[in-house]
Amino acid sequence: MVHDGTGKRTAGDFLLAARRCELHGLEQLGVVASLVGPIGGFIHALQKERGVSNLFLGAGGTRFVELLPVRAAESDAAAVTAQRVFDALDLDSGLQAGGMRVYSRIAFVLHALDGLPELRERVRTLAATPAEATAAFSALVGGLLAVVFEAADAAADPVVSRALVAIFNFMQGKELAGQERATGAAGFAMGGFDPARRQRLLHLIEAQERCFQIFSEFAGTAWVSYWRERLSIPEVAEIERMRRIACTSCESAQFGPEMGDLWFERSSRRIDAMREVESFLATELRAMLDAKLREVHADLEEHRTRIDAFDTPAAGDSPQVAVYFSDPVGDEADASGRVEVLATGGLSRGLGRSILDLVHAQSRRLQAIGDELKAARAALEERKAIERAKGLLMQHRGLSEDEAYRMLRQMAMAQGRRMVEVAESTLALADFLKQERGV
Amino acid sequence: MVHDGTGKRTAGDFLLAARRCELHGLEQLGVVASLVGPIGGFIHALQKERGVSNLFLGAGGTRFVELLPVRAAESDAAAVTAQRVFDALDLDSGLQAGGMRVYSRIAFVLHALDGLPELRERVRTLAATPAEATAAFSALVGGLLAVVFEAADAAADPVVSRALVAIFNFMQGKELAGQERATGAAGFAMGGFDPARRQRLLHLIEAQERCFQIFSEFAGTAWVSYWRERLSIPEVAEIERMRRIACTSCESAQFGPEMGDLWFERSSRRIDAMREVESFLATELRAMLDAKLREVHADLEEHRTRIDAFDTPAAGDSPQVAVYFSDPVGDEADASGRVEVLATGGLSRGLGRSILDLVHAQSRRLQAIGDELKAARAALEERKAIERAKGLLMQHRGLSEDEAYRMLRQMAMAQGRRMVEVAESTLALADFLKQERGV
Repeated sequence: MVHDGTGKRTAGDFLLAARRCELHGLEQLGVVASLVGPIGGFIHALQKERGVSNLFLGAGGTRFVELLPVRAAESDAAAVTAQRVFDALDLDSGLQAGGMRVYSRIAFVLHALDGLPELRERVRTLAATPAEATAAFSALVGGLLAVVFEAADAAADPVVSRALVAIFNFMQGKELAGQERATGAAGFAMGGFDPARRQRLLHLIEAQERCFQIFSEFAGTAWVSYWRERLSIPEVAEIERMRRIACTSCESAQFGPEMGDLWFERSSRRIDAMREVESFLATELRAMLDAKLREVHADLEEHRTRIDAFDTPAAGDSPQVAVYFSDPVGDEADASGRVEVLATGGLSRGLGRSILDLVHAQSRRLQAIGDELKAARAALEERKAIERAKGLLMQHRGLSEDEAYRMLRQMAMAQGRRMVEVAESTLALADFLKQERGV
Repeated sequence: MVHDGTGKRTAGDFLLAARRCELHGLEQLGVVASLVGPIGGFIHALQKERGVSNLFLGAGGTRFVELLPVRAAESDAAAVTAQRVFDALDLDSGLQAGGMRVYSRIAFVLHALDGLPELRERVRTLAATPAEATAAFSALVGGLLAVVFEAADAAADPVVSRALVAIFNFMQGKELAGQERATGAAGFAMGGFDPARRQRLLHLIEAQERCFQIFSEFAGTAWVSYWRERLSIPEVAEIERMRRIACTSCESAQFGPEMGDLWFERSSRRIDAMREVESFLATELRAMLDAKLREVHADLEEHRTRIDAFDTPAAGDSPQVAVYFSDPVGDEADASGRVEVLATGGLSRGLGRSILDLVHAQSRRLQAIGDELKAARAALEERKAIERAKGLLMQHRGLSEDEAYRMLRQMAMAQGRRMVEVAESTLALADFLKQERGV
């Protein structure tokens, strides 16, 4: 603690405390970020189990029965790893608002996990349809993704926040690729695609592209390059060809069962490549956080040294002189402008000026951080608004997810507005109707 | 800790952890809120000292000299109280992002405080002009208000956040009333108002009204009633009459010095009434937080009891069964819709359903909290954007604060847009120009 000798806290004490807050926030972010790797691994295993379950159900139980327990064991192993990370979290370290959301999402995941054995039993006994099985596995995956989403939303550092937005969107895109694999595998295995399945395929392709688009916007060039490089595999072009075939096919049996296998195999190669990218991203995130932590630590030390120097003026120094200036809330330009004006009036000099520089630099930094965070969070907000509007349409109009998405997109195109705007209008209207009905 | 017996954490553990996060956040909010009362008191004393300093300077040092040390002593006493609260803060309790901002603002206040003796000396020796003295005192007051602003922005509870937005705007309105008192006192004491001072008076009146407008929007009806009642004093109508006289006067001496005294006395009555309201608000805030804390405490206990019951099923109960459903990020409608569908499929029953209800209720609550917080923070964001745009215009165009505000307002009127939109466009343009110049 830096005190001025009278026991009263000084400006320096609070400047340092502000820095410690930042450090503390980063440390907690590091903990949350450590969830990303194991969650990615668990999702990947569940995606594989979902894929095989669908092949099995699509083939009416005649094939892949031997793969079911293999995939289940892989999922269970990945679940143990994830559970270990959940168990290692310090639940009382005070994550506050961010923690509330992250923990609530984990609660859902752990609860859903308890139902996995029953789901598998329903698959094994052919009691579940492919659509039901997909929905059930996807719900668990969705819950895991939501943990990463909340972690991104809770991040108070703009660089880390951007990285987490990129990673969340990548994982979401990969999950949509997984759902596409399942949908395609069931369709090819059954010999043809009905209109609903065709529509779903189209929706999944489009939504994937949106995710990778956002990933590219928020990831640094190195991450994007790595992604492009890893996804430069011949299977990608083959998948495009099969997508076209699927989307222009009819319901009657056109394909032999080998098409289903082919689709599954190629999609799996693509998804495995995505998994490599995801692991790379998790490692990079870790390194980024470590570097950031070292930086803030060093910064804190440097601040401490400077502030100590201010607070112990050498004998003969003039006493500390404060500079008066108006510091309207969050306003750097104004503040610095005024400092100049008053400085020429002789109120500013020497040591006082130096600590004021620190106060100002800090204020500017906080403003910049706030601005940058806003941009990253806007991307998350948009996603949330679209998801909620979609859910609302599904509930009130009895639409499927694909239909609801399509409806929002069509409204946006017809009105020449962005999808997020249409989504927000839809939600606002619903709120209004709710109030009208006195709900 | 609630465990399922295997040492692994359960959904219940994380639900409780989420609640504890909320409690922790509220406790920290309580600490920050405890600053509001003493800061209000300190501001009030500084406002009185600023007023007398201006009267003294306006009268060329011929009057009020005996009041200067009295007001200074009152300010010093209030400063000691405020310092005591600053000293009592637990700087390591991890306020994170909110803490960073609050502490940085306090650092500025403490630094500015060190310059108070020099400022007083400049007033006493008539070395400062009334405008300089006003600006200097106002800077310190502005710094103190910024602490309250950041506290409001950091609040993670929507009810408390709304209350703090109301209180901040009230305090800001009172401060503008204080600046109006100083500006008016100087003008009346000098016998007339020059165009710049007239313009400033108009600006201060208008800005005050905007603050009280926002206060009314965010305060509950009880607070608004208390405010209206306390401000039902004859002085308010008298002040309106004097405002009109001031705004239509010219520079040449029209008033005797008794007009300055009259204005000062009446304005002071009005400001004292505001101070009463402010004290009331600080007390109410305290009570609100205490009630809220008790509520969350009780809630946490109730949750713990329910979750304990789920986790220890009586002999013969069916094992815990999870319900699968898609839980897209933050989407309540969709989730509950799907639960119904799958529930009829037989996947949902008994205990599993109950814990799922808790997970869902929590998810809905978090969503509602997020939505409500957004509304309260939007009001703060708007204020910040307008202040920053104003500062930018002042710096780049060499305008006064009043002129900058007027320019923004005129642009808004000409373009038929809200002031905040014009402010945001101005800031975006400045960012763009900065990037262009490679800054």
